[in-house]
Amino acid sequence: MHLLLGTQTALIVSKNISEIRQARWADPALSWGLVPTMGALHAGHISLAERAAAENDKSCATIFVNPTQFAPTDDLDKYPRTLERDLEMLDAAGIDMVFTPTPAVMYPDGFGTRVLVDGVTARLEGEHRPGHFDGVTQVVSKLFNIVQPNRAYFGQKDAQQTVVLKKLVRDLNFNLDLIVCPTVREPDGLAMSSRNRYLSAEERQRATVLYQSLSQAAKMIEDGERDGETVRQMIANTVNTTPHAELIYASVASALDLSELDRISGNILISLAVLVGDTRLIDNFMIDDIKP
Amino acid sequence: MHLLLGTQTALIVSKNISEIRQARWADPALSWGLVPTMGALHAGHISLAERAAAENDKSCATIFVNPTQFAPTDDLDKYPRTLERDLEMLDAAGIDMVFTPTPAVMYPDGFGTRVLVDGVTARLEGEHRPGHFDGVTQVVSKLFNIVQPNRAYFGQKDAQQTVVLKKLVRDLNFNLDLIVCPTVREPDGLAMSSRNRYLSAEERQRATVLYQSLSQAAKMIEDGERDGETVRQMIANTVNTTPHAELIYASVASALDLSELDRISGNILISLAVLVGDTRLIDNFMIDDIKP
Repeated sequence: MHLLLGTQTALIVSKNISEIRQARWADPALSWGLVPTMGALHAGHISLAERAAAENDKSCATIFVNPTQFAPTDDLDKYPRTLERDLEMLDAAGIDMVFTPTPAVMYPDGFGTRVLVDGVTARLEGEHRPGHFDGVTQVVSKLFNIVQPNRAYFGQKDAQQTVVLKKLVRDLNFNLDLIVCPTVREPDGLAMSSRNRYLSAEERQRATVLYQSLSQAAKMIEDGERDGETVRQMIANTVNTTPHAELIYASVASALDLSELDRISGNILISLAVLVGDTRLIDNFMIDDIKP
Repeated sequence: MHLLLGTQTALIVSKNISEIRQARWADPALSWGLVPTMGALHAGHISLAERAAAENDKSCATIFVNPTQFAPTDDLDKYPRTLERDLEMLDAAGIDMVFTPTPAVMYPDGFGTRVLVDGVTARLEGEHRPGHFDGVTQVVSKLFNIVQPNRAYFGQKDAQQTVVLKKLVRDLNFNLDLIVCPTVREPDGLAMSSRNRYLSAEERQRATVLYQSLSQAAKMIEDGERDGETVRQMIANTVNTTPHAELIYASVASALDLSELDRISGNILISLAVLVGDTRLIDNFMIDDIKP
């Protein structure tokens, strides 16, 4: 399918792997950027798309709500689908091609291969969403092989995902650069997320507690606090005294292997997951070069 | 490293992934064939190399005795290494490049990613060598990503491996054709294998029992036998009445999913594993389109 939208050139949209490959390899000398998404796009995704379009000869986004990274209790069925608007936004961002497979294209009858990154998948999101990262590494491996990009773009908002995928790329020797782009935020600091649209007006206001507690943690550390548990406790108290908010975890960890820090130093990842009403939100700050 | 051997053009030999990639992508319009090996090359490997050289613009062989596909009780340490002779043979076969990594290049500190094909790995070799195919799919995924070939060549002698790798390629969408080449045999029928050199003169003579029992099984089926267990029993009796030979398994299975057949029909794989002295040998026949 070729869509003629706002721009001068046609956006290629296909759920067919052969068609995607044909376009990808039409000129093997061209470089390609890849932006994997689950659709329901927001300004965070678009920042990835714009960067992919700018840094490569050609760029491909994928829209696929991957069932294997959702647990039975997760929000797979209600995950928002906004395909037409997504395609317009990607076209406007300069994307050349969009891969929109069905589950049957990605997981045909008889499918049964797993890609498991050990270690860094066990903590934080991995601990609270068992099997989540196994689904992520499985589908991302497939997307890497289908598009064979030179560069792939992911958001810092899913901090642990970027750590897991960097390990995947290194361990399995995928021939691409994995590029992590900054979290895009609403004016009040809330990180952009497709799940924000689940929030009621009241919950939306309270959801700023993630950004506020991260900012407070960064300030504490800037002011000299070096005890990890003290910072985690502050985050927990800040979240749990907020109406409609319930802490799932608060972490002050090594940015390298995501192990929790007793003493804060070096490159760190402060992260948290919070249930705001029924909606599960995550956010994080990376801080580099903290003196012991 | 560039070796000038018997032929006019230099054979590129490198243990360095960046060097391999640089040569692979020097001209992105050229097609590449890949022949993964563990070295100790024989006429079977060379038939793969010659076909890869003939069917592609360029061809790459790899020589790596992959530790992750050997169990602690396997023959990793004594597995034969004959690098100089291997390089001469590959050069003569028309191969352009040989990747000869060390274990540290393939599995650097902090490595921890697994690639698991489910189902077809559980039977036959997988049942008797737990973890073997997990090591194979792990290393082959890495080699596919390092070389990014258009075609990859494997021998029919490792029949189950070809079934497992076809599933790997399909499930993870590796962008290549997997090509299975016929088993090359000694004049008396013994399948070429790097492990044949372990055999004493007496054992070497007795090792023909694999080919003989397979031939006998094929004859039985041609003559109308359709009971799977009868054929398996014949193979077991033939092997176990041979001095120095001990049956590990005899299988008459569906070629598709490797499940054992009660009634023989369709496309089948007859396979066996035998201990000849201390040496573990395997062999198989594929027979297509058997009428019920």
